[in-house]
Amino acid sequence: MLRAGVVGAFGYAGRELIRLLVMHPGTELAAAVELEGGQRLDRMLPAFGKLSNLTTAVFDAKSLAGRCDAVFLALHGGKAMAYVPALLDAGVRVIDMGPDFRLKDPQTFERYYGMQHTAPELLSQAVYGLAPYYRDTIRGAQLVAVPGCYPISMILPLRPLVGHELTELPIVVDAISGVSGAGRALHEAFQFCEMNENVRAYKLGIHQHTPEVEQELLGEHLIQFSPHVGPYTRGILSTITVHLKGPVDPAERYARYAAEPFVRVLGAGALPELKHVRGSTFCDIGWVMDERTNNLLIVSAVDNLMGGTAGMAVQCMNIMFGLEETMGLACGGMAP
Amino acid sequence: MLRAGVVGAFGYAGRELIRLLVMHPGTELAAAVELEGGQRLDRMLPAFGKLSNLTTAVFDAKSLAGRCDAVFLALHGGKAMAYVPALLDAGVRVIDMGPDFRLKDPQTFERYYGMQHTAPELLSQAVYGLAPYYRDTIRGAQLVAVPGCYPISMILPLRPLVGHELTELPIVVDAISGVSGAGRALHEAFQFCEMNENVRAYKLGIHQHTPEVEQELLGEHLIQFSPHVGPYTRGILSTITVHLKGPVDPAERYARYAAEPFVRVLGAGALPELKHVRGSTFCDIGWVMDERTNNLLIVSAVDNLMGGTAGMAVQCMNIMFGLEETMGLACGGMAP
Amino acid sequence: MLRAGVVGAFGYAGRELIRLLVMHPGTELAAAVELEGGQRLDRMLPAFGKLSNLTTAVFDAKSLAGRCDAVFLALHGGKAMAYVPALLDAGVRVIDMGPDFRLKDPQTFERYYGMQHTAPELLSQAVYGLAPYYRDTIRGAQLVAVPGCYPISMILPLRPLVGHELTELPIVVDAISGVSGAGRALHEAFQFCEMNENVRAYKLGIHQHTPEVEQELLGEHLIQFSPHVGPYTRGILSTITVHLKGPVDPAERYARYAAEPFVRVLGAGALPELKHVRGSTFCDIGWVMDERTNNLLIVSAVDNLMGGTAGMAVQCMNIMFGLEETMGLACGGMAP
Amino acid sequence: MLRAGVVGAFGYAGRELIRLLVMHPGTELAAAVELEGGQRLDRMLPAFGKLSNLTTAVFDAKSLAGRCDAVFLALHGGKAMAYVPALLDAGVRVIDMGPDFRLKDPQTFERYYGMQHTAPELLSQAVYGLAPYYRDTIRGAQLVAVPGCYPISMILPLRPLVGHELTELPIVVDAISGVSGAGRALHEAFQFCEMNENVRAYKLGIHQHTPEVEQELLGEHLIQFSPHVGPYTRGILSTITVHLKGPVDPAERYARYAAEPFVRVLGAGALPELKHVRGSTFCDIGWVMDERTNNLLIVSAVDNLMGGTAGMAVQCMNIMFGLEETMGLACGGMAP
Repeated sequence: MLRAGVVGAFGYAGRELIRLLVMHPGTELAAAVELEGGQRLDRMLPAFGKLSNLTTAVFDAKSLAGRCDAVFLALHGGKAMAYVPALLDAGVRVIDMGPDFRLKDPQTFERYYGMQHTAPELLSQAVYGLAPYYRDTIRGAQLVAVPGCYPISMILPLRPLVGHELTELPIVVDAISGVSGAGRALHEAFQFCEMNENVRAYKLGIHQHTPEVEQELLGEHLIQFSPHVGPYTRGILSTITVHLKGPVDPAERYARYAAEPFVRVLGAGALPELKHVRGSTFCDIGWVMDERTNNLLIVSAVDNLMGGTAGMAVQCMNIMFGLEETMGLACGGMAP
Repeated sequence: MLRAGVVGAFGYAGRELIRLLVMHPGTELAAAVELEGGQRLDRMLPAFGKLSNLTTAVFDAKSLAGRCDAVFLALHGGKAMAYVPALLDAGVRVIDMGPDFRLKDPQTFERYYGMQHTAPELLSQAVYGLAPYYRDTIRGAQLVAVPGCYPISMILPLRPLVGHELTELPIVVDAISGVSGAGRALHEAFQFCEMNENVRAYKLGIHQHTPEVEQELLGEHLIQFSPHVGPYTRGILSTITVHLKGPVDPAERYARYAAEPFVRVLGAGALPELKHVRGSTFCDIGWVMDERTNNLLIVSAVDNLMGGTAGMAVQCMNIMFGLEETMGLACGGMAP
Repeated sequence: MLRAGVVGAFGYAGRELIRLLVMHPGTELAAAVELEGGQRLDRMLPAFGKLSNLTTAVFDAKSLAGRCDAVFLALHGGKAMAYVPALLDAGVRVIDMGPDFRLKDPQTFERYYGMQHTAPELLSQAVYGLAPYYRDTIRGAQLVAVPGCYPISMILPLRPLVGHELTELPIVVDAISGVSGAGRALHEAFQFCEMNENVRAYKLGIHQHTPEVEQELLGEHLIQFSPHVGPYTRGILSTITVHLKGPVDPAERYARYAAEPFVRVLGAGALPELKHVRGSTFCDIGWVMDERTNNLLIVSAVDNLMGGTAGMAVQCMNIMFGLEETMGLACGGMAP
Repeated sequence: MLRAGVVGAFGYAGRELIRLLVMHPGTELAAAVELEGGQRLDRMLPAFGKLSNLTTAVFDAKSLAGRCDAVFLALHGGKAMAYVPALLDAGVRVIDMGPDFRLKDPQTFERYYGMQHTAPELLSQAVYGLAPYYRDTIRGAQLVAVPGCYPISMILPLRPLVGHELTELPIVVDAISGVSGAGRALHEAFQFCEMNENVRAYKLGIHQHTPEVEQELLGEHLIQFSPHVGPYTRGILSTITVHLKGPVDPAERYARYAAEPFVRVLGAGALPELKHVRGSTFCDIGWVMDERTNNLLIVSAVDNLMGGTAGMAVQCMNIMFGLEETMGLACGGMAP
């Protein structure tokens, strides 16, 4: 059994990862790190009663490296870069679910995250954990940076189109996320009565996931990214408007995803819905061609906590350690 | 007291209108028409118990004209055009909350609504009931066509920009509506378990509200309209992406709304949220200028049943009959 | 115009009261008191943009008394008793929406609220603001204590049964409240992701509303009160199980409510739903007699913020100042 | 691999069962029966895209028996009894998730379900599929009747108390279910806009799950069962009020559940929440003793579709076929 540790066990991404690791037939949850040690996991997270009798520990790279084959970090931006060097030094392979190692350019990181990068020397060795594009380098990586939840929903539908008759206009992406995307931190704006029956846009044009998408579109397109948050817990639906200068056949472009276990191309006129991906690792993609405007409209759906974070992270782990790639992840969306 | 009648009392728009008319200090609910007559309103709609002892009647233009000063129609597309000529002949003023008399061009109606218009001679006399732009003609109108819910959320923020340094590219509008926008008809797609925790896009590029917006932008811009439906009951949030060819100052453009009782301009960087307009007639508008992409991002919010339909209809009634324009409508959003 | 002031303007009860006062045709919102003064109401609560240009002030009894005919307090337990004596001394009539003056017995207050009562001398002069039972004393009261949200949903259906063939067993009340009942204070348990799709019971057998109900059932019955909170914003549904020792006809008992403007008796087999009272001041009551068990099952529904708090408070104000009792409150439930 | 078939694939219970069978490492989904045959499962239920390429068939007992080791029925009351005799004759073991074979007394079935039982001779051989109490007979059963969703939430907390100092009064159970409990059939009452922000009680005193609970409490107690439905998709929370005639120690009574894999006893004062069981097979139990009233208040939580139906059914399958009892079910609640 592969021994896995989680740093940041109580955040929403950490919880979802624990849920997956506990179900995973080839993995044992070997360590859970939180700010405070000595807390029983099943007391703090009653959902795991009778499934784990682990107790939290505080961060200690050597101890983690001794007890784990893989260490996942599920932390806010800026936290992982303090821990990762020590973990790598201690010889354990690291899967970072936060943003610290996704961008190759430390200046871009600093501009969008508002803090200096303290381990820029690791950026070039970190592998971007988007399995359909980096499977081979993920296999041998010591450090994998799992993509952000929004970027997965944009890169998967857009990357096959790069270099194919798109105009140079910024690509317009309006996306809506469930409230869990904001994490567990306490804010009045995310109290039930403030979000129920509410939708709002935020960080228009300045969201930190923008450069990550532009990097993975190979620097060839600007993204006009307008994120929203809506009154539900999980899921990101992205609606992408691409202005074309010539004919493009998305079905042909997306043929490459036929063999991808967790990308489902629904086809022209078949639009994804969040309910079909909730609780799953899938990214669903559909589109409509509007001849009147010469715009291609693409819609994609992921579960931000699972397909967008923890499921993708486990997929990376499976690849890194030679397990069957879909192990522990082959579940359909929970609908209803 | 002004005597008002409602044709289509049990649909969602009809119910909301009844809610407003019952509260309205200058109006008496004088008639409620439904497919079946003789039903007590407070039995069918228990929310109106102890507020109305009206009984439904079947449609009869003369009877309605005798009992009412104004007749509201809250019907699906294609129904009102069968009733309106008889009502006008009978001498009663009509406020149509459906789509039949919004478009000036019957061919466009037929293309988008998939049916022939049977009263095209009335299209030119119908007044588009968008108070901030047609107040003076509404005053004397015999037939007012209340705007659609989505169009209000697009026309109010966009019309002041027409002719002001926008490029000729289609304007991208991604909007999300609460489920009540789909009306009361029974569909599996709108069952609770299918919509809860779900978001989907629909009618991309072909939604019937598109030509209504383009008409009211004076035919100068195409709209790339991508509507969505989300897991909540009321409210439309529209996010509008406009590509600029030169500098525009939205605050200056929107100065005209300072005197509008139900348009609130929040300003640069201040983005509307549905919760602030729910249960109110307001349309809130805010924006962000993205220098990086030369795009102006505008966000607007309305309550689709109230600001988007019934409240706007009552505002038209107030104007038509010389009542104070805000009478019965001066309520703030129900937050929480 | 009656001049009204609100102490505790930003809490959920305060906001709802402001919403009602702004709509009320006979009242002017004359003062809004919060911990911090000088804040524009329409900035802090954008729902009131274009409806109020009031600025908050800090508490000052004399100033309030000078500017207001009635002062409402919308505060947590224990806060009002510090302010009320000064307000009464300054000669203004007070409507307290919190719990401080509901219980006649200061020992009971201290036991259930965990704090000493600092103005016990006012308890006997405070009038319990349940209009159907205390209308005549409310009329002349200087200090009205508006009932709690849960108690309204229990006392109205139960009081007519007191002394009529109920057994001496505790009356079982299972009630569920929307999250707004918890108020605006920030708690992880009330974050969206913690309450969405969730239901929980709390304070079983020890909820502070228990003695208030028992007092208003004239001390003749114990209440076994099991409150719950569910994934919605507004509304309390109480299901009451009463064991009978002989036949009782609820319809006859409830005949007294025929003339009550805001109590609707739906009848045997007709069960209330929250949607019919949301956004209204109504309390709806229905029941089922179970011959098999000799239990009478009563269900009642109120909007906890409106019928349960702010609407009831305005009804009291209307009575106290000789306005029409239903003024500003005659709105039906917002359904949908 | 065990070959499993599902009759009633498109209903909510059927979908959830398919979700579990697809994930189950020891089972293959071998047949999906619906009213119409020849439909691709991944087209009708897009959540299962890339997970199953099965096509629906119409019911044929022999064909099912040939392709399956176990056949699950996920049908409305009254449908299974038409199919089960043929399936048993054809030699396949049957797990019925509907109500037809739960009650031992056909008269009681007829009274509560309003239809005659057409296979009463099978009632005595059907095994009630509540694993903690019937594990040994489930093992060898040809026909298992999986308990109803509500009954699981009542029987598990109540059965250990039978014969232990409860009074003879009816036990009061107020329970609330998510909307999925109503199944997939189209009703206006379950449209999103009718259930969102709504709670209602229904079938007070006459719900068909009542006799099932009374049977499994060994006929020693009447249940006063008041079911409710609330604005969420999944989960049942039952609040149980038991009047005591003498001291009972629930912790001691529930000690028997220590070894049960899917019953979690949280303890005195620790109350279950739906979020901790959603998406899991667990039943969580907690309680409070109210000395003031001599009532014991017990709260239990299950996911009605999983713990309450499909998960319990798979647990029975695991037992019947000698698989590890928790295989495919060891997942924690999906929180958030």
